Amino acid sequence: MALLKTVSELAAIVGGEVVGDGRVVIMDVAPLSEASSGEISFAADKKSVNVASDGSASALLVKEKSEALSAFSLILVSDPKAAFAELIGLFRPSEAFEPGISEGAVVHDGATVSPGATVMALAAVEDGAVIGEGVILYPGVYIGRRARIGDASVLHPNVTVMDGSVIGTGVIIHANTSIGSDGFGYISGPEGHTKVPQRGIVRIEDDVEIGACVTVDRATVGETVIGKGSKLDNHIQIAHNVKIGAHSIIVDHVAIAGSTTIGQGVVIGGQAGVVGHLNIGDGAVIAAGAGVTSDVAPGEVVGGFPSIPQMKWLRIQPVYRKLPELKKQVSSLEKRLAMLEEKLLAEKD
Amino acid sequence: MALLKTVSELAAIVGGEVVGDGRVVIMDVAPLSEASSGEISFAADKKSVNVASDGSASALLVKEKSEALSAFSLILVSDPKAAFAELIGLFRPSEAFEPGISEGAVVHDGATVSPGATVMALAAVEDGAVIGEGVILYPGVYIGRRARIGDASVLHPNVTVMDGSVIGTGVIIHANTSIGSDGFGYISGPEGHTKVPQRGIVRIEDDVEIGACVTVDRATVGETVIGKGSKLDNHIQIAHNVKIGAHSIIVDHVAIAGSTTIGQGVVIGGQAGVVGHLNIGDGAVIAAGAGVTSDVAPGEVVGGFPSIPQMKWLRIQPVYRKLPELKKQVSSLEKRLAMLEEKLLAEKD
Amino acid sequence: MALLKTVSELAAIVGGEVVGDGRVVIMDVAPLSEASSGEISFAADKKSVNVASDGSASALLVKEKSEALSAFSLILVSDPKAAFAELIGLFRPSEAFEPGISEGAVVHDGATVSPGATVMALAAVEDGAVIGEGVILYPGVYIGRRARIGDASVLHPNVTVMDGSVIGTGVIIHANTSIGSDGFGYISGPEGHTKVPQRGIVRIEDDVEIGACVTVDRATVGETVIGKGSKLDNHIQIAHNVKIGAHSIIVDHVAIAGSTTIGQGVVIGGQAGVVGHLNIGDGAVIAAGAGVTSDVAPGEVVGGFPSIPQMKWLRIQPVYRKLPELKKQVSSLEKRLAMLEEKLLAEKD
Repeated sequence: MALLKTVSELAAIVGGEVVGDGRVVIMDVAPLSEASSGEISFAADKKSVNVASDGSASALLVKEKSEALSAFSLILVSDPKAAFAELIGLFRPSEAFEPGISEGAVVHDGATVSPGATVMALAAVEDGAVIGEGVILYPGVYIGRRARIGDASVLHPNVTVMDGSVIGTGVIIHANTSIGSDGFGYISGPEGHTKVPQRGIVRIEDDVEIGACVTVDRATVGETVIGKGSKLDNHIQIAHNVKIGAHSIIVDHVAIAGSTTIGQGVVIGGQAGVVGHLNIGDGAVIAAGAGVTSDVAPGEVVGGFPSIPQMKWLRIQPVYRKLPELKKQVSSLEKRLAMLEEKLLAEKD
Repeated sequence: MALLKTVSELAAIVGGEVVGDGRVVIMDVAPLSEASSGEISFAADKKSVNVASDGSASALLVKEKSEALSAFSLILVSDPKAAFAELIGLFRPSEAFEPGISEGAVVHDGATVSPGATVMALAAVEDGAVIGEGVILYPGVYIGRRARIGDASVLHPNVTVMDGSVIGTGVIIHANTSIGSDGFGYISGPEGHTKVPQRGIVRIEDDVEIGACVTVDRATVGETVIGKGSKLDNHIQIAHNVKIGAHSIIVDHVAIAGSTTIGQGVVIGGQAGVVGHLNIGDGAVIAAGAGVTSDVAPGEVVGGFPSIPQMKWLRIQPVYRKLPELKKQVSSLEKRLAMLEEKLLAEKD
Repeated sequence: MALLKTVSELAAIVGGEVVGDGRVVIMDVAPLSEASSGEISFAADKKSVNVASDGSASALLVKEKSEALSAFSLILVSDPKAAFAELIGLFRPSEAFEPGISEGAVVHDGATVSPGATVMALAAVEDGAVIGEGVILYPGVYIGRRARIGDASVLHPNVTVMDGSVIGTGVIIHANTSIGSDGFGYISGPEGHTKVPQRGIVRIEDDVEIGACVTVDRATVGETVIGKGSKLDNHIQIAHNVKIGAHSIIVDHVAIAGSTTIGQGVVIGGQAGVVGHLNIGDGAVIAAGAGVTSDVAPGEVVGGFPSIPQMKWLRIQPVYRKLPELKKQVSSLEKRLAMLEEKLLAEKD
């Protein structure tokens, strides 16, 4: 963090325009509400601009100049958040580890480890496994027999990769995640549940990132697949034989049950669940907390449990929240109607 | 996977009847939609038969012959899925590990390890622990003081078993699961929350299988119990002093709160929750996503949050989904009633 | 567990009053329903007193004497549960480990480990890390670069602490938990999702306890904070830049999304979720299973999904459960109204 850059230099890096003093020296990035002298932050919307104007950052990445920020050095960019992400990488680069197989690692003679891979102490690599160039295996990582880890992938501490799993290049897997554990399959009979052997694999394509404490179960036979560039948050359950397309986003605690197919560019909100053997179309959006029990068409947005079109779900909520009032209204109508009926009956007599 | 078997040989193994050419050679099992030449799959229902008829499997396990499958070698069996499970085990047997204590394992002098047990490198076994015959402890497994692991049990990488836990025979525990961590118990007062020491144990009976990233907390005092033959999926929380009966099935992300008793043969769907100190009777079924806040009778089927009988819950859903229409209907009734009232009033005058 | 104490001695320890025979010898604590001769348990309410009266404990901690318990030695105390917690600690003290760095531990030369710390075999401590006095690091624990673990903290097996994390004194972290993994942040564009580098830290204050299989993600920049004395159950997700105040209680499977601030003394029930960038006020209570989508005022109690005041939610439930009946009532009103309308029309003619 000894890097020093002027606002003008930073503007050149992110392709932005300086407003104010470009000679101000910046030495770190910081969150908007905590940024102080010598630090740069970003303000992408009006609310943030208000927070920024009260703060003491030395510089700000913003979309446009404004009265409220006249005291700050500004860098105008079309996407302040993206520019800020670039500066995080600049001021706080990822730290290297020395390549090679640590003395304390346990690597089987039958495994193939690229010379530029880092296998730290307390990592284990089994027979037939192949570890690509630039891979980092942290302590506590387990790589099962014949598993393949593509170039430049990083497996954080205590990640388990069971036998036969295939992991692409540039994949990141966070701590304590399990790849390739047995799927949940039994034949139930009068004497209990007999295990269906789970002997398929998990295939994780390039540029996937998987959070901490996630489980991706191996297929019964065949493959469980996480498609290229998809991103999974923490505590997610991907059951056996699930296929997830490219560039999908899945938020924490989501559960996808067995053999379901998720398309490309799908977004699934936190704590949602999808039952087995469904098709979720490309670009579908599943709201947080939803329980999906039937196929979702491409581009469809669903929510609720069981899930329905999200717009419909949103229209239901205000009525749901006034159910006691609706019930009273109906009771009152009933009374008024009874009075009318009585009256008419009386008039008849 | 060099095993070669004719369809007739396979039929003999699974106790089925050949329809078509029994001499066809099979070399592997495959999922229905991916099976190709030389592979056998299964089709247990009409939908699957349709998929099969378009596929290129060499043979199929089915309940009965059909026009659509006249081009395939068939094996007729009463339960195609069970027969397929048997063939998975045949073509893809589980792989052995050499028994013995690896040089890289850390086993306390006071631990007892059976000669036929496999303790891999990077596994740790503490003082007083007893490891049974045929047990496999993968790298990263931790066995606490005085814990006992019954014969033929398999603990996958990075499983933690805290002190005093008792695990039966034939138990399977998948990666990154925690057995015997402290229960969540505090005495709350004006100065914060004081920990109630958690000094009971976990007891897991024979033939239980537990998924990855599961937590089974130790009892405060006494035991947390998972009954014989029960099967737990991934990401499940079993709190302190919970007792689960034999042959129950619990799906992913389920949470069972403290001191609740679950009967035998209970099925609990994914992401459901059960509050503490309840009794869930034998054979009860709790639907996915349910929130159970009161006792469930034996054989009862409940769903919803808070849970109610599932049939009742199912009857509510169509009305719930039409709440905006119901509200409109009520508003319209109100208008019509007001008009009638006005009319009657006018006539009176 | 060879400790023997008379009921009178135990009464002196917990500050209670003996009723019955104080000379009875007690050798262990036990759960009420399992306690037998020589054991003491507690009965804090009427239901428990009934259970106790049928049991065979030798002594009981209770609030007041009662007819039903005349056969037992009693200790009267104002808080039987708290007194029982004290006796658990007495009869079943926590077991010590010998301090020092085990031969099988992997500690970087640039790390600082206090002489009174216990670093067990198969634990890893990276460059620049600082391990305080009395700390216990179990096997499989990973401590990243420059991370700091305060005095007397205990990290259970397979806990991962990523670089830069700061952990206070007296903190307990249970097995397979991940502290400081990357937050879930991307810039999405036409070519996929670009990772926002996550280079902030996690700070865990003194006396915090964190369950098993929990994830506390590092901040993007700045800090993710768990406040002093807060207690987290298992399977919880704390996203990047979340701040949790002191003495809050969070139950299993809860998810707190990015940048949300939780106040002091907040209680969040199991499987609840809180979306990002919200403020949850001091002393607020979020019911189990709730989905919080807007700020919660200090002391407010909310439930439901999306969450509303819990009292309001409770009033909705009985109407919700009778929706089919409400619909029938409305249909019946409609028919009666139509008949009236017809009648009036007929009379007019």
